[in-house]
Amino acid sequence: MTRLETVFVPNRGEVALRIVRACRDLGLRSVVGHSAEDADSLPVRLADDSFCLGPAQATHSYLNIPAVLYGCAKTGADSVHPGYGFLSEDPLLARACADAGVVFVGPSAEQLALLGDKIATRQAFADTGIPVLPGSAGPLRGVDDALDQAARIGYPVVLKAAAGGGGTGVHPVAGPDELIGAFPRMTRNADRLFTDGRLFLERYVPSARHIEVQLLADQHGDIVHLGDRCCSVQRRHQKLLEEAPAPGLPGRLRTELHRAAVRGAEAIGLTSVATFEFLVTGPEEFFFIEANPRLQVEHPVTEAITGIDLVEWMLRVAAGERLAFDQDGVVIRGHAFEARINAEDPEKGWLPSTGRITDLVLPGGVGVRVDTHAHPGYRVPPFYDSLLAKVIVRGDDRPESLRRLGRALAEFDCVGVSTNTGVQQRVLAHPAFQAGDYGLDLVETITAAVVR
Amino acid sequence: MTRLETVFVPNRGEVALRIVRACRDLGLRSVVGHSAEDADSLPVRLADDSFCLGPAQATHSYLNIPAVLYGCAKTGADSVHPGYGFLSEDPLLARACADAGVVFVGPSAEQLALLGDKIATRQAFADTGIPVLPGSAGPLRGVDDALDQAARIGYPVVLKAAAGGGGTGVHPVAGPDELIGAFPRMTRNADRLFTDGRLFLERYVPSARHIEVQLLADQHGDIVHLGDRCCSVQRRHQKLLEEAPAPGLPGRLRTELHRAAVRGAEAIGLTSVATFEFLVTGPEEFFFIEANPRLQVEHPVTEAITGIDLVEWMLRVAAGERLAFDQDGVVIRGHAFEARINAEDPEKGWLPSTGRITDLVLPGGVGVRVDTHAHPGYRVPPFYDSLLAKVIVRGDDRPESLRRLGRALAEFDCVGVSTNTGVQQRVLAHPAFQAGDYGLDLVETITAAVVR
Repeated sequence: MTRLETVFVPNRGEVALRIVRACRDLGLRSVVGHSAEDADSLPVRLADDSFCLGPAQATHSYLNIPAVLYGCAKTGADSVHPGYGFLSEDPLLARACADAGVVFVGPSAEQLALLGDKIATRQAFADTGIPVLPGSAGPLRGVDDALDQAARIGYPVVLKAAAGGGGTGVHPVAGPDELIGAFPRMTRNADRLFTDGRLFLERYVPSARHIEVQLLADQHGDIVHLGDRCCSVQRRHQKLLEEAPAPGLPGRLRTELHRAAVRGAEAIGLTSVATFEFLVTGPEEFFFIEANPRLQVEHPVTEAITGIDLVEWMLRVAAGERLAFDQDGVVIRGHAFEARINAEDPEKGWLPSTGRITDLVLPGGVGVRVDTHAHPGYRVPPFYDSLLAKVIVRGDDRPESLRRLGRALAEFDCVGVSTNTGVQQRVLAHPAFQAGDYGLDLVETITAAVVR
Repeated sequence: MTRLETVFVPNRGEVALRIVRACRDLGLRSVVGHSAEDADSLPVRLADDSFCLGPAQATHSYLNIPAVLYGCAKTGADSVHPGYGFLSEDPLLARACADAGVVFVGPSAEQLALLGDKIATRQAFADTGIPVLPGSAGPLRGVDDALDQAARIGYPVVLKAAAGGGGTGVHPVAGPDELIGAFPRMTRNADRLFTDGRLFLERYVPSARHIEVQLLADQHGDIVHLGDRCCSVQRRHQKLLEEAPAPGLPGRLRTELHRAAVRGAEAIGLTSVATFEFLVTGPEEFFFIEANPRLQVEHPVTEAITGIDLVEWMLRVAAGERLAFDQDGVVIRGHAFEARINAEDPEKGWLPSTGRITDLVLPGGVGVRVDTHAHPGYRVPPFYDSLLAKVIVRGDDRPESLRRLGRALAEFDCVGVSTNTGVQQRVLAHPAFQAGDYGLDLVETITAAVVR
C-alpha cells in the first residue's frame, strides 16, 4: 500500500479548504497550489504549505498542468487531489501524475477519458442495459443529420457537446429553426472550449427530476453506492439546492436506480468516486444522462446522511486501502439539504458580485455544517465562479431538515457582496419544494415571477 | 398533551442561541429575555421576539424571577427554557411557572429542590445503593465537628456547600489548620451566595477522573441514559475540554456507572434531563458526587455521538411527548470532543478579557460544530462568565476526533479579545490526554509549568 504523506491541491475556494481539512483530519500534510490572486486565501493560510501556480486567470494557474507537476516536485507532494472543476476530470493530469510517480486522487486516466466523452459513455451504459435518453446514436455528422435525428426523437430536444460537463455545452432546442441556428454556434464553442466540436442530441424533458447516485470504489474491485441525491433545483443547468435522499421516489425505482449505477460502475471498473446522473421522468421511468468522475459540489449531503467522509475515503482508496464497509454497511439516516450561496445579484440579472466582505456571520449549531473560504475582510475576486459558501443541514426527517435549512439561511448574514440567499428562501418556501414534488422547471417558475 | 408555541429563554450567550435555534428547528416561536447590556446580541436578533428583563447585573435581569414571569405574560410565551446557569436550577422559578400556568422546560420544582441540596442527594443516592464518596453523614455542626469528621475520613478532604454547584462552593483542604481557617469563611460565603450556609465534607481524590452520565426522561416514566462523558480537564473546578464516550473505562465499570445513573433517576422519578457526576478512582471503583438537573454546557458531545438533540427532546417531553426510543434505541457512534473557548488571558492570571472582537474566523467543515453568540464586531461585556464559543468535533474514533479537534482549534481565529485556545492546544498535545489516560490534576500539571 502506498502511504500518502503530502497532498497537493491545485484548486481554490471552499473545495480547496475542504481537502486541506480532510488531510489535517487524517494526519496528512497538504499543499495548496493557488493563483497569485488567491495567495492570501483561507485555504492557503490553513494548509501546511502552498505553491503559486501562476497568474489569476485559471488557464495560467488552476488549469496549468506543468505548474501542478512542478509544484509537487518543489513541495515534495506525493499525491494530487484536484477537487472539482478546473483539472479534476482531465485525463491529461491523471496521466501526467502517473508518469511522474505522483498518486492522482480520483479515477484513472482511462476512466476519466471514457466518462468525459458523453457519447462513448452513453453507448457503454446502454450496452450494459442501463436506460439512456432517446437520442442520436453517435456524434452528429452535420446540421442535416441533426435535423433528421431531431425529427426522429421529437422536439424539444437538447443539443449537447460530447466533451461538455457541469452544465456547459448544453442547449435545449424547441424546433428546427432554432436547431439550424444553434448547431454551428455550439460546434464552434465546443471546439474552442474543449477542443472537441462533436455534438449529439437527446430528448428534452423540461419537467423531469435530476436524480444522481453517489458511487465509491477502491482499487480491489469493491464498489458501493451511497444513495441518491435530488438536484433538480437548477438555474441554467447550474445546481442551486440539493437534497438527499431524493424525496418521493417510489421504492422500486430507487432500488433500480442504485442497481443501475452500481452496474455502470462495475462496467467501467470504477476506482475512487463518481456520480451517475439520471433523469427521472415518471414513477417507473428513468434515463442515465451523464457521469461525473470526481468529487461533486453537493457531496456533503451524502456525507450527512451516511456518516461517510467522501474526501477521506478518496484519499484512503488512492493509497490502496480497501473500503472498510460493504453495501450493507452503508446506512442512510435522516435527511440533508445543501444550499449553495453564490456571490451574485439576482436582482441585477444574476451578475456576479465581487468586492470586499465587510461583515459575515455564518449559521451554526446542531445539524448545521458550513463549508466556506469566505471570512470578514475577504475580497471576492472577479476571475472565478461565484460559489461563496455551502450551507449543509441534516435533520432526522425531511420536515425537520427543511425547518433547519430555513433557520440556517435566515442566520446567514453577509455584508459587502450580494448573495442569492433570498432566492434560496423563495425556493424553500415554494409549496412544490416543501412537498418534495418538483422538477427541473421549478426555479424558472419562481424566478420568472419575481426577478426581472 | 400541551402543545408548546412560544418559548421564553431568560438567558444569554451561546446557550440562549442554542435554544432559539432548537425552537426554530421545531417550528416554535422563541423570545429571549435579556439584560439591557445584551439588547443587541445575536440570540436576541435571531429570536422571534425579545424582552428586557432589567439592567446588566444578573441579579437585576437573568436572576429576576418576577421579570421572567412578566416577560412571559407580555410576550404570550407559554413555556420557559432556562438554559444553564442563572435560574436553571432554581425551584422557585419552576414553582412560579407552574403557578402562572407556564410550562417549565426542565425537571420539576421538587426534583430541583432535592438535587440542589447536595447533602440530601448524597443520602438519597446512598439509600438506593449507589456508592457515594466517604464523607460527613449530614451538614457539619461546626468547626469541631468538621475536624472530627475530617480526621475520620482522612486528609485531604474537600469542603463543600450543600447548595453549591457548577464548581462554586468547593474547597480542597490539606490538613486541620487549613480546615479551621476555611470553615467560617466558606460558611459565610455559602450563606451570602446561596442563603444556605450548610457545609459538608468528602474525601478528596485529586487525581480521580470526573465522569458523568447524561439522562433523559419523559413524564410517562420512561428513562434512558445517553452514555457518559469525561470532564476531567478542569481548572479550578471549571471544565475546559470534554469528551464522549469517556476513554479507557473498563466495560464493566461503564455498564455499572450507567446502571447506577438510571437507578438514581428512577429513585427521584426524574422528568426532563439531568446529569449525574461521578468520580472514578480505580478500574473498579466509582463514587457519585453530584447531580445537575438541567442542560449541561457540554451536552453537544452527547448529541454528537448519539444523534439525539437534547434541547429538542427537553421541549418535546415538556409538552408531554413520550420518548421515541428506548435504551436499545440509543446507539453510540464515534467519538466527540468539546473545547470551551473562553475570553480570558491565561498569560495574565486568567483574567477575563473584554472588549470588541474586530475579526473572527470560526472553524468549519465536516465533523465540526460551533456554538457561539460571538461575531465580528461583538463587544464582550464584563458582567457575565467568559464562555465565548464551544467548538465541538466528532470523528469515527478517538484518534480521528482528536486530530479534528486540533485542526478546528488551529482554525479558530479571534482578534480583539484574548482566548484560551493556546491552553486548549497544550492540553490536546499532552501525552496523557492523547492517550486518554488523565485525571482532574492534568491542567494543573500543564499550566503550572507554563503560566506564571
